Amino acid sequence: MAEKNYMNERFAKLKKLLRKNKLDGFIVTNNLDQFYLTNFFFYPNEAVFLIHKKGVTCFTRELYVESFGKFAPQIEVIGDENRIVSAIDKARKLGLARPGFDAAKETYVSGGLLRASGFVEAGSLITTLRENKDAAELKLLRESNRIAYLTYEYIKPRVKTGMTEFEVAAEMERFMRAHGATTTSFYTIVAFGENTANPHHETSARKLKAEDAVLMDFGCVYKGYCSDITRSWWHGKKEPAEYTKIWHIVDKARKQGIKAVGIGVPTKKVDATSRGIISAAGYGQYFTHGTGHGVGIEIHEDPYNSQQSAAILSEGNIVTVEPGIYLPGKYGVRLEDTVAVAKSGAKILTKK
Amino acid sequence: MAEKNYMNERFAKLKKLLRKNKLDGFIVTNNLDQFYLTNFFFYPNEAVFLIHKKGVTCFTRELYVESFGKFAPQIEVIGDENRIVSAIDKARKLGLARPGFDAAKETYVSGGLLRASGFVEAGSLITTLRENKDAAELKLLRESNRIAYLTYEYIKPRVKTGMTEFEVAAEMERFMRAHGATTTSFYTIVAFGENTANPHHETSARKLKAEDAVLMDFGCVYKGYCSDITRSWWHGKKEPAEYTKIWHIVDKARKQGIKAVGIGVPTKKVDATSRGIISAAGYGQYFTHGTGHGVGIEIHEDPYNSQQSAAILSEGNIVTVEPGIYLPGKYGVRLEDTVAVAKSGAKILTKK
Repeated sequence: MAEKNYMNERFAKLKKLLRKNKLDGFIVTNNLDQFYLTNFFFYPNEAVFLIHKKGVTCFTRELYVESFGKFAPQIEVIGDENRIVSAIDKARKLGLARPGFDAAKETYVSGGLLRASGFVEAGSLITTLRENKDAAELKLLRESNRIAYLTYEYIKPRVKTGMTEFEVAAEMERFMRAHGATTTSFYTIVAFGENTANPHHETSARKLKAEDAVLMDFGCVYKGYCSDITRSWWHGKKEPAEYTKIWHIVDKARKQGIKAVGIGVPTKKVDATSRGIISAAGYGQYFTHGTGHGVGIEIHEDPYNSQQSAAILSEGNIVTVEPGIYLPGKYGVRLEDTVAVAKSGAKILTKK
Repeated sequence: MAEKNYMNERFAKLKKLLRKNKLDGFIVTNNLDQFYLTNFFFYPNEAVFLIHKKGVTCFTRELYVESFGKFAPQIEVIGDENRIVSAIDKARKLGLARPGFDAAKETYVSGGLLRASGFVEAGSLITTLRENKDAAELKLLRESNRIAYLTYEYIKPRVKTGMTEFEVAAEMERFMRAHGATTTSFYTIVAFGENTANPHHETSARKLKAEDAVLMDFGCVYKGYCSDITRSWWHGKKEPAEYTKIWHIVDKARKQGIKAVGIGVPTKKVDATSRGIISAAGYGQYFTHGTGHGVGIEIHEDPYNSQQSAAILSEGNIVTVEPGIYLPGKYGVRLEDTVAVAKSGAKILTKK
């Protein structure tokens, strides 16, 4: 079970946070928080974990009792259809004095039930832990982002005049799947021509013309961890001068944004760096979104590289740097890498 | 805008429910509920809808103001980064006397804020509406399930000895994508041999042997609507007698379960019908899950065909019927169709 040390380490980190918050128990109902702790995937509402003095108890569907029991022998696994109520009972029987719940993730109804049963409102403790990736997570994120990068390298020479955005996306997703991805990390964006000017374009049956802008923003899920990459280029031989111009501005904004990333740096500063370059070039009003977001088990996580964020980057954060310029009705350029925050600065994960 | 009548109709249905519940406003923060109302896809936490006497106001990211504004001209769209607070302000300015929120979907924190601001706990009104699909939704569900069925027909003759579960899943997903699916409706399950005995097997690098059981459980998302189908067969020429036996028991349980579906029928009865056949054949202990679930914008929705459910089927419900027998260490068989509840009984959607 050497390879499952991560599980004991993550529970140990959580227990340390509980002690710090003077909690002697904690209920985990969010399936992605459960995945973070165990790397076992439950769908939403299929399991409830109760962390307590004697260890961890999992209430889950009968279906999973055997498989999860084998997967995590250190966890007590009980088949149960009334999971939150059973966890509350268990906490009472164990005599927990101050068990907590995540008030930002629990619903108003389930949170109300827990509150009425003596559980206290705690912060999003696991969300906080999930912001700083450990070595096992970094390994998976590196592979997830490597697959995304390889997909870009694979597809670029295969994008031909006359293909639909749909066809290109289908081939990219097949490639990611065949390289070990379980699914996409979000709806793959393939945009041609004027569609590239819509930052959140929905992939369509639009066909690629002989002279057209191309933008693709995509990623995969590899063993539960997400990747995110965007590339833009001109398809054809008559690249408009303004396209070349904005491509190079965005490229500079990406490179300088990545250089700004480091331990102790406010995420505001990363955003300001990329944004400053685009604004100085006169395109500030055409950069209509934040510079980036955290990536992990979810495609959008804390911390955010944005002016609305007060976050400070720390070791093990994974963030995207993705500046863009969108000229409505014409075309847009976005360039994005996913990077890890390390002692040496930003380490790009979206590469071979 | 004739094709967008569904939007006005769905808002009208919601307003009717509000009147019934003596509410003069309602906040919608769940992105899938927002999709139900509009067919516009926001990611979670990107938009807040306030339904009020004068119409509908949407607070969303600046990014979407133009595209959503064009998509839904009947909705007031405001770019805003503090969406719940702004919706509360708006409700106050409009003088709403009794606006409601969905206590089962709102978080403990946001629900608490709404409660403190005069919003009242309401039931899951949109969840209720979503249980009965309208004509536009049925059309999309039919196409989504047709694509899934076509995928089964396409892949079956292409499953060859030596292929990995992964390779088969990748080819199925490429096919669905190329036929207009945006993604899978859940992680595609392809299981070979002993893996077929695990109802929630995680697709792996296991290779297909010359004589092996095959099980595939999968579906796609087509224009936001999910499909779900399971097929099982023996690969090879030496099908074990017990495999043949359980296949036919499960097939009978599926057919009779589908026959039991109809308007006014308790979902318990659908489950009891399929389960009764498997139990009578002596395999009751090997059917370790419910007989089915609702399908729509989410892959698992109300109503559930299970002994734990008190639901009564009504027109426009979409449910799966998916009995199975799993012999640990050996093999398993599950057969699943997705059906619509109509006046004439069950209409199978997982077909050509």
